[in-house]
Amino acid sequence: MKLGVFTVGGREPHVGRLDGDVVVDLGRGDSVLRDQVPGHRPGTWSVDEVQSQLPFPVADYVDFYSSLEHATNMGRMFRPDQEPLTPNWRHLPIGYHGRAGTIVVGGTEIRRPHGQRRAGDFGPSQKLDIELELGFVIGKPSKLGEPVPVGRALEHVFGAVLVNDWSARDIQAFEYVPLGPFLGKSFATSISRWVTTLDELPRVPAVEQEPEPLEHLRIDNFAFDVPLEVELNGEVVSRTNARHLYWNVAQQIAHLTSNGASLRAGDLLASGTISGPGERERGSLIELTWNDGPFLQDGDEVVLRGEPLGEVRGRILP
Amino acid sequence: MKLGVFTVGGREPHVGRLDGDVVVDLGRGDSVLRDQVPGHRPGTWSVDEVQSQLPFPVADYVDFYSSLEHATNMGRMFRPDQEPLTPNWRHLPIGYHGRAGTIVVGGTEIRRPHGQRRAGDFGPSQKLDIELELGFVIGKPSKLGEPVPVGRALEHVFGAVLVNDWSARDIQAFEYVPLGPFLGKSFATSISRWVTTLDELPRVPAVEQEPEPLEHLRIDNFAFDVPLEVELNGEVVSRTNARHLYWNVAQQIAHLTSNGASLRAGDLLASGTISGPGERERGSLIELTWNDGPFLQDGDEVVLRGEPLGEVRGRILP
Repeated sequence: MKLGVFTVGGREPHVGRLDGDVVVDLGRGDSVLRDQVPGHRPGTWSVDEVQSQLPFPVADYVDFYSSLEHATNMGRMFRPDQEPLTPNWRHLPIGYHGRAGTIVVGGTEIRRPHGQRRAGDFGPSQKLDIELELGFVIGKPSKLGEPVPVGRALEHVFGAVLVNDWSARDIQAFEYVPLGPFLGKSFATSISRWVTTLDELPRVPAVEQEPEPLEHLRIDNFAFDVPLEVELNGEVVSRTNARHLYWNVAQQIAHLTSNGASLRAGDLLASGTISGPGERERGSLIELTWNDGPFLQDGDEVVLRGEPLGEVRGRILP
Repeated sequence: MKLGVFTVGGREPHVGRLDGDVVVDLGRGDSVLRDQVPGHRPGTWSVDEVQSQLPFPVADYVDFYSSLEHATNMGRMFRPDQEPLTPNWRHLPIGYHGRAGTIVVGGTEIRRPHGQRRAGDFGPSQKLDIELELGFVIGKPSKLGEPVPVGRALEHVFGAVLVNDWSARDIQAFEYVPLGPFLGKSFATSISRWVTTLDELPRVPAVEQEPEPLEHLRIDNFAFDVPLEVELNGEVVSRTNARHLYWNVAQQIAHLTSNGASLRAGDLLASGTISGPGERERGSLIELTWNDGPFLQDGDEVVLRGEPLGEVRGRILP
């Protein structure tokens, strides 16, 4: 089932279910995250007739870093004299909090961010990039002080979206030591218009984890078989698959709550950039061009695609 | 004016105004962040009669790192062979996003978090610490793509709270490279029960900034004269003042929005740990004990105080 929020001709937002090219009107509501999705109403619309809104109000947004290939590529580029993976990488799914308030629905135009590209040098980012990610949406909250067991973590997941975690590499490079990315990411994050419920994603066994994870993270590794592509100005520049991810969403949830932190309905857990082993299987321009560019130019349009999640689209404004 | 949210005897939450020891009932509402605070109702309560709730729903939570003395102390401890301040520190107010969903009202008991203290070593944090901070609450939103000029930033601030940004130093040390703090902070953050509107905080000139900030961060430096103290099990272990902060909240807002990111009502911007120049003017145990401990033990009670903001209290559970 694919659920989203839409308006028609300026009316109040309704929840809708996407069936092919038809949007079935499920009535009033500003979120799809409910135990009981309301029954459909007389109205149905063509998908071309409706204006999509953010499909749910985002509570906390966590961005992980769960692709071995992506983390290795970034390490090779930026710390060429060291081991590409930091010592913690294989022991826990590294993550950090992003800005929930600037998550936008796919199709929203993206204004090129300004920032400090080097000390004292403020201006438009010259290294504007994409990050191809899968995002999981929490539907069932958990309590403060009660870690979610890894074996029950999927019960908390409502569904998934595609995510483009737009990144200004120059701003990020200057700001991120020691507290992590901030303005290099916070200007906008795009998600797809429809949340696809988890039952529609094909599950497959995933890579063996070495060393074996600690007990609270231990589960037969799995991934979702979602073929992905990055299209830039009409040309596909990368094809990969979410099945390459090293850490799975159950482990991410178990890790996130292992210190007692709670989940809320509407939390968004993004995978981090998904890259595969091949040179044309990378999920960011910095990896595809090995930091030589070109990065995104004004007017460029990026479309991320991955069935059954649909697509997430964005065009760069100056 | 001090505003908060309270219940009495399990009734629905009301907004209240604190006048000395009296809570004036302002009627129904789950947030104090309104243009028009409702008129008071017949009821008033003694402050001892009411149960305080989180005074406003937190939108995004940003934690800055704006005390020169704190950042210098941390650098001296953890990177003794390098310059204590990272190259970006004097060019922008470093910050990162924290977990909004685990912000709790003062008085809430804090469960000691578990986490990976070293590779493969999972258990209760052995370095549980406090961070004494000032937090500013956004009342007036800003638009995506429209940076807030530094000279108009205070118009967006509704008021201030005291913040205890509980920190598990061992968990944080293992996880934070390269994407910043996550589980070392996300288990709980306590804020005071009442939001004090900005007009009640005395403004004073602050330290000269060197080098002069870039144009979009340039403003006569100011701070708030809020005397602060840290009490541990009934004994005051530190006295400092918010006037020591290097970066001011107008600069933090201008920086945060300089890439086009928007503000929402309910955003919380915390200062980062506030330390003064003296050895007993530090706002964390790691600085007060120079990383030798003792850190917090089970049963310890911490009270942060700072008039006119009141106090924020928390006791450690095993």
